[in-house]
Amino acid sequence: MTRGLTIALDGMGGDHGPATVIGGADIASVRHPDVRFLIFGDEAQMRPLLNEHPRVAAVSEIVHTEVSIAMDDKPSQALRRGRKTSSMWLAIDAVKTGRAQAAVSAGNTGALMAMAKVILKTMPNVERPALAAMWPTARGESIVLDLGATIGPDALQLVQFAVMGEAYARVIFGLEHPTVGLLNIGEEEVKGTEQVKDAAQMLRDAKLPMRFHGFVEGDDISKGTVDVVVTDGYTGNIALKTAEGTVRLIVEFLRAAMASSILSRIGYLFAQGAFRALSKKLDPRASNGALFLGLNGLVVKSHGGTDGLGYAAAIDVAIDVASADLLKKIVTDLDALKNIELAGGGRKNSISEESEAAIS
Amino acid sequence: MTRGLTIALDGMGGDHGPATVIGGADIASVRHPDVRFLIFGDEAQMRPLLNEHPRVAAVSEIVHTEVSIAMDDKPSQALRRGRKTSSMWLAIDAVKTGRAQAAVSAGNTGALMAMAKVILKTMPNVERPALAAMWPTARGESIVLDLGATIGPDALQLVQFAVMGEAYARVIFGLEHPTVGLLNIGEEEVKGTEQVKDAAQMLRDAKLPMRFHGFVEGDDISKGTVDVVVTDGYTGNIALKTAEGTVRLIVEFLRAAMASSILSRIGYLFAQGAFRALSKKLDPRASNGALFLGLNGLVVKSHGGTDGLGYAAAIDVAIDVASADLLKKIVTDLDALKNIELAGGGRKNSISEESEAAIS
Repeated sequence: MTRGLTIALDGMGGDHGPATVIGGADIASVRHPDVRFLIFGDEAQMRPLLNEHPRVAAVSEIVHTEVSIAMDDKPSQALRRGRKTSSMWLAIDAVKTGRAQAAVSAGNTGALMAMAKVILKTMPNVERPALAAMWPTARGESIVLDLGATIGPDALQLVQFAVMGEAYARVIFGLEHPTVGLLNIGEEEVKGTEQVKDAAQMLRDAKLPMRFHGFVEGDDISKGTVDVVVTDGYTGNIALKTAEGTVRLIVEFLRAAMASSILSRIGYLFAQGAFRALSKKLDPRASNGALFLGLNGLVVKSHGGTDGLGYAAAIDVAIDVASADLLKKIVTDLDALKNIELAGGGRKNSISEESEAAIS
Repeated sequence: MTRGLTIALDGMGGDHGPATVIGGADIASVRHPDVRFLIFGDEAQMRPLLNEHPRVAAVSEIVHTEVSIAMDDKPSQALRRGRKTSSMWLAIDAVKTGRAQAAVSAGNTGALMAMAKVILKTMPNVERPALAAMWPTARGESIVLDLGATIGPDALQLVQFAVMGEAYARVIFGLEHPTVGLLNIGEEEVKGTEQVKDAAQMLRDAKLPMRFHGFVEGDDISKGTVDVVVTDGYTGNIALKTAEGTVRLIVEFLRAAMASSILSRIGYLFAQGAFRALSKKLDPRASNGALFLGLNGLVVKSHGGTDGLGYAAAIDVAIDVASADLLKKIVTDLDALKNIELAGGGRKNSISEESEAAIS
């Protein structure tokens, strides 16, 4: 159901600005000709690009903005400077006012998170948002969350991430009962931080309609052991960047190996098709687009350095979650959590300040 | 200075038991003919292996033990069952009594950590031990610690890890001034948990003779941005296993790509030498051997599933640190920390129980 759907785009976000945004919208338009775009940004920069991409021009409304958030603006700076005037703010605001069903930005993550929280506010029964992304695995893809929105969540907040991630997996993978695991340093119940141990206990006790697998370890992520991997924003962010760094290192090793002798160069020529297929499999653009969960509106973060192809993947995520009405599903699912708040014992809210600090 | 050095080996540890241990000692003996071994284990199993490896037999003393720790024994079980009788206990005890200068075990990590703590005790000025391992990078290798010995260390404990890791890097890399970074989710000072922010502040203020780089992110590990990456055991363990899983996934993708067509198979044949070199670069056996730091004695943990070649690498680590007198260097360096305890403000020791639980 993409008919009547409008996606708001922050035209100025990302390392390459409007060119990537309009180029990405063009690719997405081919796949979803019914979807309309509401693009916020500097009209003088965007108009020539729209002339080059008439398909985008035909389905887009442009809203001129003077202010754009820099990639290195601190969230507090961005909020001060960009409030009600920046392309980023206005794209999110369009979701709040209902002019768009989801927003996409390739802008600075901290600023986007801060603005989205201020404009959209957290959902009922959610205290902290989470950033959820796709992770390529041996079985296809899994969702991993949180990747950096919340530092130091307590057990109940981890349980909320699990519920939101599960709903997201149902929508994006089309699974009726996705499996959910909690990231830990071992599968035994006695291992790990108090938060993950308590969260596991809650998920076991809560009798939610969820296939909770228990703990998973770091190497289970790429094995695809579960469809949804739940962790805190600190660990999730470090795990994601560690994996990205590992991929880059191996690709570098592989390149050096293939260039190391005449024989290997000849081998490379023969196997070129296979290397192209491999490089497509490892292409981070295919899984671009991380979704903020737990807010009263859908906001997708595109990688800042991506190109049109990657940006189109982020738009696809926005379209998929908006057309499946993910927010309503999450609100319903979270409602079942009301009763487990007590089961979890004392809340540990001492980390709230810390979480705030992470985005300031 | 390997002359007169004796390394204690837990002959029964690991998935493949004595065969790997004796095989590994054989390989290590070629590289270090001066080093002697004190091997604890079931004599009936070890004697035929020693007959096959006369080079090891010539430099080894065998101590017969009846009890061996199983790979799935819980640390508490291992301590009960294996106290003063098991090959693992006795190997560590040989370090305490001075019969050996370091111990190596491929046995169960939790049990080894628990026994090493009970037998050797933590050093003065150290509250929690750390497990430090080599991580292959674009620039060679870096040390990453802690990989799972301490869950939820406070800021001062992270600082202690930094000091111990730096001393280890001087010894094992032969660097005069290795660089040290704290693993975090961004390079800005405002990001991350309270513990890493406080630890960074302490390291900046302490005026230690250390090249403290500041924060590093997950992808900096494999870039080799710093020689020593400091983190807590929960995050470090997850980062390590995530990277290992990523390597396995890409190797699987690569294999499938090379087998995907006749052309790619031909290409593979031409480039076989290059693939062999690559697979050597990615071979986890080369960087096998994680060192427990912060105890009054040297204990090296070998991967449980490794073979003789990997086990020999773990023995090499033990020989390198024992011959360089790493422990004395660490004691001296930690002494400089006495004054920063106050600078760090209030201690956060509420996580102590959690840390204990991690190994029980």
